[in-house]
Amino acid sequence: MSKNAVVLLSGGLDSATCLAMATSQGYQCHTLAFDYGQRHRAELHAAERVSKAMNASTHRVIQLGLREIGGSALTDDAIDVPESESEGIPVTYVPARNTVFLALALGLSEVVDAEAIYIGVNAVDYSGYPDCRPEFIDAFQGMANVATRAGTEGHGPKILTPLMTMSKAEIIQHGVELGVDYGLTVSCYQATDQGIACGKCDSCRLRHKGFVDAGVKDPTPYIK
Amino acid sequence: MSKNAVVLLSGGLDSATCLAMATSQGYQCHTLAFDYGQRHRAELHAAERVSKAMNASTHRVIQLGLREIGGSALTDDAIDVPESESEGIPVTYVPARNTVFLALALGLSEVVDAEAIYIGVNAVDYSGYPDCRPEFIDAFQGMANVATRAGTEGHGPKILTPLMTMSKAEIIQHGVELGVDYGLTVSCYQATDQGIACGKCDSCRLRHKGFVDAGVKDPTPYIK
Repeated sequence: MSKNAVVLLSGGLDSATCLAMATSQGYQCHTLAFDYGQRHRAELHAAERVSKAMNASTHRVIQLGLREIGGSALTDDAIDVPESESEGIPVTYVPARNTVFLALALGLSEVVDAEAIYIGVNAVDYSGYPDCRPEFIDAFQGMANVATRAGTEGHGPKILTPLMTMSKAEIIQHGVELGVDYGLTVSCYQATDQGIACGKCDSCRLRHKGFVDAGVKDPTPYIK
Repeated sequence: MSKNAVVLLSGGLDSATCLAMATSQGYQCHTLAFDYGQRHRAELHAAERVSKAMNASTHRVIQLGLREIGGSALTDDAIDVPESESEGIPVTYVPARNTVFLALALGLSEVVDAEAIYIGVNAVDYSGYPDCRPEFIDAFQGMANVATRAGTEGHGPKILTPLMTMSKAEIIQHGVELGVDYGLTVSCYQATDQGIACGKCDSCRLRHKGFVDAGVKDPTPYIK
């Protein structure tokens, strides 16, 4: 009997690895991406490519007007994406983004009867985002257990974060073993619409260092 | 010194009363409505009218593609709105809707520095929705306390549900005392774009009974 999972898919390296892991665990995967007014379309194209390449059952793109809220370099043009590491919570933090993404995944999990939700958050390279911490995921699980139809009986889908304690290099090594084609993924905060990465932002630097540390050739196209 | 609140405003009777209560508590209110593919536009027009009439500081309408998820008579045209009461969780339940709405309110609360979020959920007339129960609100509060910037220090905005234990008649009586003009609000699940109510759906019947029980003239325009 098949079991279903919802997999949050950003088009980046981490969520592609999550999808491969969910598939290898025997889940029929329903992938979910968000058009939330991010600076470029490349990651949405990447999410669709990755979902197809890994034979997900369905792929959805949900419109989400986070620009009405703003408050982040990723959703407010008045705030620049930084090119050097910052102290504390970075300006690329989007207020309550993972809470919103997981809430929508929770809704989809009811509709497709999924017993698990995969999210590729990571506490090692999480860059100080409050909603990538294990405490947050545990608290969301507690809420999910009472929020839905199943929640009236005290249970909800499992929120799975298989990357939580892995280094970027470990994630890449694991993904390569599972056959992930990282050339399909885009991590850059300010990629061109064709998916060419800047090579300078936090996300690019973490990603490139991951490939170097893993001893895997970096397939990312960078701006010359 | 002014204090800020985010108020979820559907355009209906309950959330308009919530806004009046938040204002009477001294909050500067930032109202938040959602364009989630609901069957009619009347409630969005109503939310804007109500926000203006009660002098909220800002009003936002967030695009939210819940039709991509479906699973409810309110977001899926293939499921009809019923005209009689049903057993259990009704087909008008939108999977994880309040979780999603509160998650977006949580994001806005960070941006406008709000110390409270008002939501007009009600456990008396809640029609069996799992995400209108006190257990759900308590669990969301626990999650909100760790989800945001403030959450890295273990606190978040207070989730306030002043209507939770009030009957519809009590809500109306309280709102009338606070000067709410219920003629501006729309509750019907299938109102016309001009805000004319069907008078038959669950929401219409609960609302009308509330006015009768409160001894207040029902200002709702119904289809003849």
